[in-house]
Amino acid sequence: MLSKYVPSVDWLKRYNGMDFKADIIAGLIVAIMLIPQGMAYAMLAGLPPVIGLYASTIPLIIYALFGSSRQLAVGPVAMVSLLVYTGVSALAEPGSDQFVSYALLLALMVGVIQLAMGLFRLGFLVNFLSHAVISGFTSAAAIIIGLSQLSDLLGIELPSDANVVGLLAEAVMNLNAVHGYTLGLGLASILILVVFKKYVPKIPGPLVVVVVTSLAVYGFNLHNQGVAIVGNVPSGLPTLTMPAIDWNSITQLLPIALTISFVGFMESVAVAKKVASKEGYKINSNQELNGLGVANIIGSFFSAFPVTGGFSRTAVNYQAGARTGMASIFTAVLIIITLIFFTDWFYYLPQATLAAIIMVAVYSLVDVKEAVHLFKIRQIDGWTLVITFAATLLTNIETGILVGIATSLIVFIWRSAYPHSAELGYLEDEGVYRNVDRYPNAKTFDNTIIFRVDEALYFANIAFLENKLEQLTEDKPDTKRIILDFAPVNDMDAVAVDELDQLMQEYDDYGVEIHIANMKGPIKDLVAKAGWFDRYEDRIQYLSIDQSLDQQSNS
Amino acid sequence: MLSKYVPSVDWLKRYNGMDFKADIIAGLIVAIMLIPQGMAYAMLAGLPPVIGLYASTIPLIIYALFGSSRQLAVGPVAMVSLLVYTGVSALAEPGSDQFVSYALLLALMVGVIQLAMGLFRLGFLVNFLSHAVISGFTSAAAIIIGLSQLSDLLGIELPSDANVVGLLAEAVMNLNAVHGYTLGLGLASILILVVFKKYVPKIPGPLVVVVVTSLAVYGFNLHNQGVAIVGNVPSGLPTLTMPAIDWNSITQLLPIALTISFVGFMESVAVAKKVASKEGYKINSNQELNGLGVANIIGSFFSAFPVTGGFSRTAVNYQAGARTGMASIFTAVLIIITLIFFTDWFYYLPQATLAAIIMVAVYSLVDVKEAVHLFKIRQIDGWTLVITFAATLLTNIETGILVGIATSLIVFIWRSAYPHSAELGYLEDEGVYRNVDRYPNAKTFDNTIIFRVDEALYFANIAFLENKLEQLTEDKPDTKRIILDFAPVNDMDAVAVDELDQLMQEYDDYGVEIHIANMKGPIKDLVAKAGWFDRYEDRIQYLSIDQSLDQQSNS
Repeated sequence: MLSKYVPSVDWLKRYNGMDFKADIIAGLIVAIMLIPQGMAYAMLAGLPPVIGLYASTIPLIIYALFGSSRQLAVGPVAMVSLLVYTGVSALAEPGSDQFVSYALLLALMVGVIQLAMGLFRLGFLVNFLSHAVISGFTSAAAIIIGLSQLSDLLGIELPSDANVVGLLAEAVMNLNAVHGYTLGLGLASILILVVFKKYVPKIPGPLVVVVVTSLAVYGFNLHNQGVAIVGNVPSGLPTLTMPAIDWNSITQLLPIALTISFVGFMESVAVAKKVASKEGYKINSNQELNGLGVANIIGSFFSAFPVTGGFSRTAVNYQAGARTGMASIFTAVLIIITLIFFTDWFYYLPQATLAAIIMVAVYSLVDVKEAVHLFKIRQIDGWTLVITFAATLLTNIETGILVGIATSLIVFIWRSAYPHSAELGYLEDEGVYRNVDRYPNAKTFDNTIIFRVDEALYFANIAFLENKLEQLTEDKPDTKRIILDFAPVNDMDAVAVDELDQLMQEYDDYGVEIHIANMKGPIKDLVAKAGWFDRYEDRIQYLSIDQSLDQQSNS
Repeated sequence: MLSKYVPSVDWLKRYNGMDFKADIIAGLIVAIMLIPQGMAYAMLAGLPPVIGLYASTIPLIIYALFGSSRQLAVGPVAMVSLLVYTGVSALAEPGSDQFVSYALLLALMVGVIQLAMGLFRLGFLVNFLSHAVISGFTSAAAIIIGLSQLSDLLGIELPSDANVVGLLAEAVMNLNAVHGYTLGLGLASILILVVFKKYVPKIPGPLVVVVVTSLAVYGFNLHNQGVAIVGNVPSGLPTLTMPAIDWNSITQLLPIALTISFVGFMESVAVAKKVASKEGYKINSNQELNGLGVANIIGSFFSAFPVTGGFSRTAVNYQAGARTGMASIFTAVLIIITLIFFTDWFYYLPQATLAAIIMVAVYSLVDVKEAVHLFKIRQIDGWTLVITFAATLLTNIETGILVGIATSLIVFIWRSAYPHSAELGYLEDEGVYRNVDRYPNAKTFDNTIIFRVDEALYFANIAFLENKLEQLTEDKPDTKRIILDFAPVNDMDAVAVDELDQLMQEYDDYGVEIHIANMKGPIKDLVAKAGWFDRYEDRIQYLSIDQSLDQQSNS
């Protein structure tokens, strides 16, 4: 019982020296990666860099205890940070105390929503997010995030509320104002990050660029030449404070809190499941919600903005050999030590370096291959991805994700409303009934049409069946019997039961009998309640098409 | 070609004396019914009664020529009139010239939308309206319409914008102010209408109550005792005028115009199809849209508010023997004659009588039987009806219909996300594979699970399949093979293809092989594009479960 809500109990009981060694190395590597990323994502969210470090302490420890993944690296991530910026910048000036206060309230709200979803077992909702939708909006969000760093990279002012096209246009028009040293540091950082990632993956690129560019600024006095630097990062631990709760702010932040809860959970559970399946243990998606929820709630009391499990840091954590949540606890401890002793070291860190770190991190999220792959397998799924991508890029993440969900569900409904169907003929050699279009030699029968619809029948496709039968009887006016092969009819709703009933009676009036073969058990239960067995008796109870044809030649 | 867009050409060519006799009788009977109804529905819409008569002239003739139904009785109907009131009363004072002007613009907009839908062949959209939804919102709308007449029936002022509960509460609180003569005339009218409908259906009740109550008012001077009467109805034909078109009004009226276009079309096509199927001819739903569209467009130039085909008048028209659209043309001619010569006769007609006519007409639309029937066959469809009913009653028709559509589609998606599934066993006597839960004697196989999911696989239910397989292999840890029976899998999307692919590879890693039997042609085409035949070869190509088991015992 305890281990259900505190999964860490399972691994804590069996914790040993081997685990400890592996976890401490992974914890160190992730900490080195997380320190610059945490600061960078905080700035992306419109917050002072230190908030990103705070968000990399307590929430990690709490998640390690309550989450069901043992390798998930929780903390600030790009997408959630962008959502925080979008939501809170409508209410307060980025960087202001008021902004920080709203961001902490948002973390509390996200935590409460996620915990409530977990306790009410709503984790299954994530199933309704098609992978095509996730891929489309992740790619678009990555582009939005990358472009949002353009201002820091070029050292110019750009409107923060413009859409992608506007932002690019402004950047081009202000090219003459680009600050050379800033751009130089930024491009050098990007180059180093890309080269290290590709050729020396063992050495953490972010650490290298942070050290190199900080030294460059310090050595050449670049901050006096106009290069923007991180500046003073307050040292010491975050104090325990209650987020400022007022009803008005809560209602205004609610839509963004719901989006963050859902998007954060989705990102987290996707990567957690991938790692868990490789390691042979299981992720309970409701317990994931509980873990993330508690981490965000308690984090919000220690000045942390909303966190979730990140794709790339989890991959690094896992590859570095993390065995249990203890790795994350080590990461948190290292960052706490950094907060106490080493915040001065970040004084000369150029903002362009943080921008470069974000840009390189999100670049890998733009996934063109997936779109090509979907188009190859089933075009309409490719279009779902493209529509989601375009909607996200042209509006925002919340609208984009809603458009994506709606599109993917409409596609499903659409296909079920116009299902595949076939007139069947008999293949004498094989003894089976097949589509006469695919098998032109299939034998058909005088005065009899055998017809199959490959879909559950319900209100939206019953008219389709009606029209098909009308066409068939028009093409073959001497038809006396229609045999419906119900083998692929997996379900029916009450509306379809009634309308098919009515249809059968109408056709009776025209002198055409509709018979049904291969009706499944659950459908039989349904039509029994509508009195079909009294009305149609044997006509709808054939166990095979053969049987229905036999009955007719005897009659 | 001509007869495609002007279906009347078909019957005009063959028109004969027998048709003429039948049509003129039906035309007369409908006219007698339509005159009071037209005035009553105009008042329900917040318009002067004469507009209801105008709407019963030109549009009927135009529809007779362009519509595809030969018996549909077009004209003012209760639901559309209520929608006109709801939409236009937000912009102008009911009864005012401005109100009339908006109502005519609305008719033009409805006509243009319907014609455009017809030309773009969007008639199929009506298929997405489940009968459960139609029944639920029709019942609720009937109650709203009936209660809206309470004010005229009781002779008291009631707030016109209150919802059903508020209206009833106000009526009860004002019971002491009820005007006795008015209520007496109203109740007498209801009694006469009900009795004639039930016992003397040959004699048109509306005509009787109009004559009797008008004479009563005239004879006893009741209009000087406070009984509200119709008063002066201008005589003569409507003049040709252009509706006042301005962009601002159009944008404000657009939502209600869309709702009326859709609801009107739906009501019309439902009753037209019912009659056509009895008479053995066909309704083309796109041509119905064209016919209604042109009728509303041209009507709007002759002071007509939006019209559509009505349930009850069409039934009367058909039962009275109408053979062609000529019956409607006779109805229109009789109403034109009335407009020219007899409008004075309506002077003493009490408004309470018109209220009684509306109440009795809509009462029959409240359909409790359908709800009971749906609950009996499939509970969830009954709930769809109840939710639509409640949403319509508590908010309004537009919201109600949207809630209904959303509910019915969510139900469908929900069921497909949690489909029926079964572990199969072999029935030796019958030689078939069946659900082991239904057939406990079915033979199962060592180390092998045979599993069937009765649904197309797509993004929203692939996790369901994943969980089911996980459960099954947990329950039977010695499983080496899982055979998926793909016979009921009618469709797959690209996401399901990818995730099942991944699942098969994961299970391979655990030492459990997933095999697939009975894969259908369209699915084969799909997975071929994803490279499955190279990767899995024979494992996914069994033509039957037998075959897959044979292969395994040989291997």
